[in-house]
Amino acid sequence: MRNRITELFNIKLPIIQAGMIWCSGWELASAVSNAGGLGIIGSGSMYPDILVEHIQKCQSATDQPFAVNIPLLYPDIEKHVENIIRLKVPIVFSSAGNPKTWTSILQKEGIKVVHVVSSARFAGKAQAAGVDAVVAEGFEAGGHNGREETTTLCLIPDVCQAVNIPVIAAGGIASGKAMLAAMALGAEAVQIGSRFVASEESSAHLAFKNKVVDAKEGDTRLSLKTLVPVRLLENEFALRVQQLESEGASNNQLADELGRGRSKRGMFLGEMDEGELEIGQVSALIDNILPAKKIVQNIWTEFLEARNEMMSWRVL
Amino acid sequence: MRNRITELFNIKLPIIQAGMIWCSGWELASAVSNAGGLGIIGSGSMYPDILVEHIQKCQSATDQPFAVNIPLLYPDIEKHVENIIRLKVPIVFSSAGNPKTWTSILQKEGIKVVHVVSSARFAGKAQAAGVDAVVAEGFEAGGHNGREETTTLCLIPDVCQAVNIPVIAAGGIASGKAMLAAMALGAEAVQIGSRFVASEESSAHLAFKNKVVDAKEGDTRLSLKTLVPVRLLENEFALRVQQLESEGASNNQLADELGRGRSKRGMFLGEMDEGELEIGQVSALIDNILPAKKIVQNIWTEFLEARNEMMSWRVL
Repeated sequence: MRNRITELFNIKLPIIQAGMIWCSGWELASAVSNAGGLGIIGSGSMYPDILVEHIQKCQSATDQPFAVNIPLLYPDIEKHVENIIRLKVPIVFSSAGNPKTWTSILQKEGIKVVHVVSSARFAGKAQAAGVDAVVAEGFEAGGHNGREETTTLCLIPDVCQAVNIPVIAAGGIASGKAMLAAMALGAEAVQIGSRFVASEESSAHLAFKNKVVDAKEGDTRLSLKTLVPVRLLENEFALRVQQLESEGASNNQLADELGRGRSKRGMFLGEMDEGELEIGQVSALIDNILPAKKIVQNIWTEFLEARNEMMSWRVL
Repeated sequence: MRNRITELFNIKLPIIQAGMIWCSGWELASAVSNAGGLGIIGSGSMYPDILVEHIQKCQSATDQPFAVNIPLLYPDIEKHVENIIRLKVPIVFSSAGNPKTWTSILQKEGIKVVHVVSSARFAGKAQAAGVDAVVAEGFEAGGHNGREETTTLCLIPDVCQAVNIPVIAAGGIASGKAMLAAMALGAEAVQIGSRFVASEESSAHLAFKNKVVDAKEGDTRLSLKTLVPVRLLENEFALRVQQLESEGASNNQLADELGRGRSKRGMFLGEMDEGELEIGQVSALIDNILPAKKIVQNIWTEFLEARNEMMSWRVL
C-alpha cells in the first residue's frame, strides 16, 4: 500500500508493531519488518549496551527499515540517542516526554521522528516540534496512557483535524477490521501492541503471553491514574492497587505499592500474581500465540477482505 | 441501504437516534424518522401520560417507523408498556435491566425489541432472551455506561462474535467516518446520541446544547463508577463528585451528593453548574446545533464519501 506513512518509512504495509518494554526486542522487530510492516525495538527496558546489542542483531536479521522507541523520560537518554545515531537507525518513535528536545537533533542525522500522543492538543505540540508523524493512542491501549481517557474512535478524528502530518492510530487494534476502522477515521497506518505481545518472537515471558490469550472483556483496567495512568491486566497486584485507589490513597502510597521493577517481574520474569502486566483491552480478542509474520499477514488479508466486503453493501 | 437492520425496522438509512432522557421527545424522534433514520423517544424521563402525549404527537408528525426507549428499571414500567402496546408503537429499545421480563410480551404484539448492552456477555444474554437486535455501547458513550469500560472499537467485534442477531454500534459516533468505522467492525447500524442532543429539535435546554458545542477533549468523565457509572460533562457538580471519589467516598455519600432530579436540572432546566450533564466523549467533535434532518443527511453523505475514498487508496 502506498500512502504518506509507507513512503515516509519506505515499508510495504502500514502495519507498525509498537515498541514495548520487555516484549519487543530485535527478534520481534526484525520479524515484523521482514514481513513488510515496521518493527520497533522498545528501548525503555534496556540499558544502553543492551539496546546496542538489539540494534545490531536487528540489522543482521533484516535489511528492511525498523525503528527504536525511546521514552523521553528515560534516565540515560543521551546514551540511547548517541547509539541510535552511531548505528544509523533510520526511524525513532518517541513517547512520554517533550518532543522538542530531541526531534531536530535526530532529524539532522537523517532520522525520521514520530511522537506518541494521547490528545489532539499534544499532537499539535508534536507537530510544532517538527516531528514527521504522530501516533495517536486511545484509552483502550495497554501500558501508559493519557489523562483525557479519550478512546481511539474519538481521538483519531480529533487528531486528524488538529495536524497536517500523517496520523498513526493505536489502541484497540489487533485485526484487519479494526485496522480498516482506524483508517476510515483518517489514520494512515496502525500501531499494534497487544497482538504482538502474544507472538512467538515477543520476549514476553510465556506465562504472560498465555495470560494475554486467556484475557476476557473487562480484565484490564486503567490504573494508577493520579500517579501515571497505565492499563493493567487484572492480577493480585492490580487488584490491590484498585483497592488502594478506591480508598483514596495518596500518590506516595501508590508509588510505594508499585515499588521498582514490577513490570520486569510481570512481563519478563513471569510473576503473574505480583508483577505489573501492561496490556490493552483488545487482549480480550486475542486467542492464540502466532509467529509475527503470520500476524502481519492475517491482519493485512482481513483488512483487504473487510474493504472488499464493504463494497458489497447494498447501498441504493 | 439494505441490510438486516434497515429491513428489521423498515427504514431507509441505518442511522438511529438514541433515546435520551430530557433530550429526545416526539419532535426529535419524528424529525429523524422523517429524514430516513430511526427516531427514538426517550421515556426514562417521562411520566406515563407524558409518554402517551409524545407517542401520539410523533405519530401525527411522521408516517415512518419510530421507537420508544424504556429503561427496564423505570418504576412505572407496566404503564409504559401498556401504552406502547395500545398505541401500536412498532419498535422498543430497552436498556438498564433484564430483557427477559418484557421481550416476549412485546414481541407477541408484533413489536420489534432491541436491547442495549455494554459487553459481549450481556449481548449473549439478550440474544437468549429473544431480542431482535442489540445495541452495543462503548465506554465513550454519554450517560449510563458499563462497568467493563470496554470501548466501542473493542466492544463491537467482541459482540459480533458472541451473537448472530444484528449489532448496532453506539458510543463515539457523530460523523459518517465514525459510522463507516463502526460498520467496518461488523455493526449493521449506528445509534447516535450526543450529536442529536445538539439538534434544533432536541428538547435539551439551549444552555446545555451550547455547552455540548463548546466541549473539548477531556471534558467528559465516567463518574459515579461504584454507584452507577455515568459519563458526565465537567461542571461544578461533576468536579465535586470526582473529588469525593478520589477521597474514597462511600456509595451512600455519592448518592447523597447526587440527590434527586439532577439530570432534569442540568439537561432540561439548564442549570449548568449544579445539574447532571450526560454527554459522550464525541461532544469534543460537535461544533454546531443543526436541524436533525441536516445531521442525518450530513452523516450519510460523509459515510458514502468516506467509503468511496477508501476505494481510492493505493493498495497494490
